[in-house]
Amino acid sequence: MILKKSTIFIQSQVPELFELTSYYMNLVTVSRLERNPTVKAEIAQKNFETSIPAGFLCYPISQAADITAFDATTVPVGEDQAPMLEQTREIVRKFNDVYGNGQEVLIEPDILLPSNNVCKRLPGLDGKAKMSKTLGNCIYLSDTSDDVAKKVQTMYTDPTHIKVSDPGHIEGNVVFTYLDAFCTDTATVSEMKEHYQRGGLGDVKVKKYLLSVLEEMLNPIRERRKQYEGDPTEVMSMLKVGTAKAREKASTVLSRVKQAMKIDYFA
Amino acid sequence: MILKKSTIFIQSQVPELFELTSYYMNLVTVSRLERNPTVKAEIAQKNFETSIPAGFLCYPISQAADITAFDATTVPVGEDQAPMLEQTREIVRKFNDVYGNGQEVLIEPDILLPSNNVCKRLPGLDGKAKMSKTLGNCIYLSDTSDDVAKKVQTMYTDPTHIKVSDPGHIEGNVVFTYLDAFCTDTATVSEMKEHYQRGGLGDVKVKKYLLSVLEEMLNPIRERRKQYEGDPTEVMSMLKVGTAKAREKASTVLSRVKQAMKIDYFA
Repeated sequence: MILKKSTIFIQSQVPELFELTSYYMNLVTVSRLERNPTVKAEIAQKNFETSIPAGFLCYPISQAADITAFDATTVPVGEDQAPMLEQTREIVRKFNDVYGNGQEVLIEPDILLPSNNVCKRLPGLDGKAKMSKTLGNCIYLSDTSDDVAKKVQTMYTDPTHIKVSDPGHIEGNVVFTYLDAFCTDTATVSEMKEHYQRGGLGDVKVKKYLLSVLEEMLNPIRERRKQYEGDPTEVMSMLKVGTAKAREKASTVLSRVKQAMKIDYFA
Repeated sequence: MILKKSTIFIQSQVPELFELTSYYMNLVTVSRLERNPTVKAEIAQKNFETSIPAGFLCYPISQAADITAFDATTVPVGEDQAPMLEQTREIVRKFNDVYGNGQEVLIEPDILLPSNNVCKRLPGLDGKAKMSKTLGNCIYLSDTSDDVAKKVQTMYTDPTHIKVSDPGHIEGNVVFTYLDAFCTDTATVSEMKEHYQRGGLGDVKVKKYLLSVLEEMLNPIRERRKQYEGDPTEVMSMLKVGTAKAREKASTVLSRVKQAMKIDYFA
């Protein structure tokens, strides 16, 4: 078994991340954490109100550890994660400023947003918020063909598009947003958009096309998933190898950090 | 070299503590941390106001890790640390409640306050606040005899005790508080208190007596300090041995914790 492309590891099994988090916690103020828009939104969504767990508030700091522990230069995320990455960049600059002595001890990472033209952030089935387990508006990679078919049927389209012959709107129409995101045949999508806008193209047809696009994408993923589901030993071994590799890298970064902080007493 | 009585170790070299801290952070709310009176007082003292570092606010959580990582049953502290210990006890109860499945995974520690009759918390030289490096009202174990003599001279006594013949007050009189705390000859202290209260005993005399008491206590400490100062290799080796011993214990507790949390995937 070889990890050919990605190192997959279990975060909680890399203790170096906890240590980095603890050091970074001294470089971030509580009010800075409270200003984080993603954290704010999630606090509202989870109904935490005043009883926010400390671990939740400080989560962006642990994300900074997750990123910097591997000298990441580029972090591919949705745009809703931009504030998290900004927090990481601030921590990096602060750390290098306080402890770097002119050196770049930590690497400041860049964000890599999805390049697809329309949706930097994929909306949920309801078109209201991003996909979220809690909101139940997701398509899962583990969904069966039937699940996906049912979910596509419920997708938000255009409430003013009542009869097939009515002109339809594609703005905020989740089906078209998904086509833009996942369909590689952009000519067909353009043609469908025009047809839909001038009237005469029904939601059922567009959804059917989207379903075929999604199925084409999801099928090979389903197959590989099934293969690994039948071989948990192989999965566990993959995670073990990945975690060992992650620890090896994280511990070199941690050493660098402790050296810069002058707390590598026994080194 | 043998650590005969105490295991002395460097906290930052025991990574298990960081990991425990991270887990406990999910069991404590931000508002609970903000209510901690010791933290509140130190925030005021350090002029942090709204820019409190996250690490500072969460410090009581890391103290809970420091205590529980060694299955401590008793924590000898000054009474100003009582809120910290209460926070630890809350974390222990919460952890056992959430993850214990009826078992006592973590041990709930008891506080052990100083037993000396008067001062559960020794005041600083100025009699206003507890001793604090920041406030500069401390006697240090590293102070020379001259330092201590000078500091005892500046000690707050009784501002109404102007002439030797005036009756003096012993309440809030730091010199008597220190005699109560450190002089084992309680008969002499009682006699001096009576004499001082009825008048005729000067501050200079009481301070001279206190100095002799302090010197008798500090001298052997100074000598051992000098001995170890001349042998940093021995000190380092003591710390290494102590840290290894601390890690051994902390890692068994951490294993128990991860097992209870069902995140010991590779165990």
